[in-house]
Amino acid sequence: MTNTAPSAYRPLRSTGRILMGPGPSMVHPRVYEALSRRLDGHLDPEFLQIMNETQDMLREVMGTRNRLTISVSGTGSAGREAALVNLIEPDYEALVCVKGVFGARMCDIVERLQGRLHRIERPWGEVFTPDEVADALERHPGVRVVAIVNAETSTGAHQPVMEIGRLCREKDKLLVVDAVTSLGGTEVLADEWSIDVCYSGTQKCLSCPPGLAPITFNERALERIRLRKRKVSSWYLDMGMIESYWTDGKRAYHHTAPISMNYALHQALAVVLEEGLEARYERHRRCSRALVAGLEALGFRLFAQEGYRLPMLNAVWIPEGIDDARTRKLLLERHNIEIGGGLGPLAGKVWRIGLMGESAKRENVTGFLSALESLLYLAGARKEIGASLEAAARAYGEAS
Amino acid sequence: MTNTAPSAYRPLRSTGRILMGPGPSMVHPRVYEALSRRLDGHLDPEFLQIMNETQDMLREVMGTRNRLTISVSGTGSAGREAALVNLIEPDYEALVCVKGVFGARMCDIVERLQGRLHRIERPWGEVFTPDEVADALERHPGVRVVAIVNAETSTGAHQPVMEIGRLCREKDKLLVVDAVTSLGGTEVLADEWSIDVCYSGTQKCLSCPPGLAPITFNERALERIRLRKRKVSSWYLDMGMIESYWTDGKRAYHHTAPISMNYALHQALAVVLEEGLEARYERHRRCSRALVAGLEALGFRLFAQEGYRLPMLNAVWIPEGIDDARTRKLLLERHNIEIGGGLGPLAGKVWRIGLMGESAKRENVTGFLSALESLLYLAGARKEIGASLEAAARAYGEAS
Repeated sequence: MTNTAPSAYRPLRSTGRILMGPGPSMVHPRVYEALSRRLDGHLDPEFLQIMNETQDMLREVMGTRNRLTISVSGTGSAGREAALVNLIEPDYEALVCVKGVFGARMCDIVERLQGRLHRIERPWGEVFTPDEVADALERHPGVRVVAIVNAETSTGAHQPVMEIGRLCREKDKLLVVDAVTSLGGTEVLADEWSIDVCYSGTQKCLSCPPGLAPITFNERALERIRLRKRKVSSWYLDMGMIESYWTDGKRAYHHTAPISMNYALHQALAVVLEEGLEARYERHRRCSRALVAGLEALGFRLFAQEGYRLPMLNAVWIPEGIDDARTRKLLLERHNIEIGGGLGPLAGKVWRIGLMGESAKRENVTGFLSALESLLYLAGARKEIGASLEAAARAYGEAS
Repeated sequence: MTNTAPSAYRPLRSTGRILMGPGPSMVHPRVYEALSRRLDGHLDPEFLQIMNETQDMLREVMGTRNRLTISVSGTGSAGREAALVNLIEPDYEALVCVKGVFGARMCDIVERLQGRLHRIERPWGEVFTPDEVADALERHPGVRVVAIVNAETSTGAHQPVMEIGRLCREKDKLLVVDAVTSLGGTEVLADEWSIDVCYSGTQKCLSCPPGLAPITFNERALERIRLRKRKVSSWYLDMGMIESYWTDGKRAYHHTAPISMNYALHQALAVVLEEGLEARYERHRRCSRALVAGLEALGFRLFAQEGYRLPMLNAVWIPEGIDDARTRKLLLERHNIEIGGGLGPLAGKVWRIGLMGESAKRENVTGFLSALESLLYLAGARKEIGASLEAAARAYGEAS
């Protein structure tokens, strides 16, 4: 089986897209520069300092003072698993609020861990009221953990968390929040919202390539972990051991940190904080308003519940007569633009248009609208050109 | 907690070391270029093609025709967990062969999964004979999985696998092999050695930054997974779902692949195959011979059992009177060279000097020996300078 003869040159063939799907998003040049930095080792004093700085910046972006605020060495999905695998053990009761793909995945994980799952549902695209969560907690008083998605990437729905957090704290439940798509694009205030464990991913509004999962555990969550009867079923994601590596003075080797990705996250967070969180959130809102105005001018309707729509993930119904796969293929091939299709039951029914981090730029909004409008025109679905760009310009507050 | 004012510029402060520890190793410029490539999405046809090519190259490097030969989205430790979590379920019996830190970690994982663990041990630095494994299998006929480390990174011992593989196949046991440190530096022939699951890491002899774990499952292992009673306890590492994403024609979204790291692995594998596997192994052997000759000329003794020493991980006893931490600190600060200390019971007793992938270069061997010899001279532990470089030159077959 071994090939002893040197083989031909194998190039890496990739174009680099205008990324307007549900993630990954565009990446700032400084982050690419960080990625290509010559390595230090994972126990090098310089690298440990970079870890410390990353923790400080993550705390700022996540709105927390939690000591254990780190990056998990996997994608956002590893963050979800890290959150749940450390809290849940057999027969531990969890309430999971499901309104899309990612809530459903939390259920799957709880079941794999043999936790006792209580599941409440809202139609996809909608959000939960605090009362619905309160009712479920009345019905299931044994629940110890409540899990909910702040930004449902499969639907574009924006779930308010603050009141649910207050409720969970009052009733002494641990609250786990998925902020994969929201972090860095809309406000996430882990402490103020009484979140006990909050996780995210790097490739959405932090505009870093995929590969790490920011996560934070507060002291309540850590206390729960200390009281577990059994070891955490995952060695790789065991927060007790990972904590030792991230703690100055301990720095016990656990696994080799993904160094380049941690360099990238450091610079991605620096870019976020240099822009300023409020300015960044406002940029996402402005871009989304313009995009939505343009799409509505073309006859598209938004999918998610009004008043609860994410600026960075705009899900729209695909109008009758428009070929989903073909249109996305043409967007990619002719315009180099990636947008996302629907997941699960929404496949073929919605598009998910992302404006995440570096992707949330006016040039991308107008570039996408022009491209889409021209494709619709060529397909005979539009008689004229220009309506979407005018509507976007008006949304930007400019004379048409 | 939110900081709304833009903050000061936060630079990334890293020097980039000469990496001669137990990994990460030096990285080829083409791999850094790949890392800093502008992204495609994880379902982009271009990216799927890159995944296909990566699989082909991985098969070549791992010596296998296994269809399911992929990269796990985590470090080598995630590869270990992926191997075991998919095979083991409660009461499933495993025999783990322990001769260092990484064998012990396999035991920890089996126990977390509530497998029934049978553990055999060799003193650290030694290897197992096939007879020892055969005896253990006689004693524990219920064993279904045998797990062993091919290259023990904590000791530098090189465990032969072929005969143990033949034995396991005869007795219908599944064989899991840890090739984290060996892959790309010494022969790994998954099929010829009858390995059922083999995993590795990117940051050793593949000379790619840490962050991915190459892994291969043969049909016997996949059949075992299909016969599980319970779902795999890890959602993130569930090979059934991951397989769908890596299979042409399915490409079901599971988690967002770490795109940049996969670009990097693609080019790291290309560099490996362009050099040629045999040429690469020979380069590792030559460098190691020279390094060992130089170290022995300075009075160092090798740690691992003679005849079973890894070329890419040279563990030596630290001689009496040499300050471990201080010497390594000076190597780092004055010479920019990282070497590894001992793990666990070997802390303070051995050094682990890596010659992995791009690090296995003559300039690194001579640079390290010069640096070490000068430090020993300055510390009064050597009276003269030059012996190690002469010995290394002789080992390279040159006149002294």
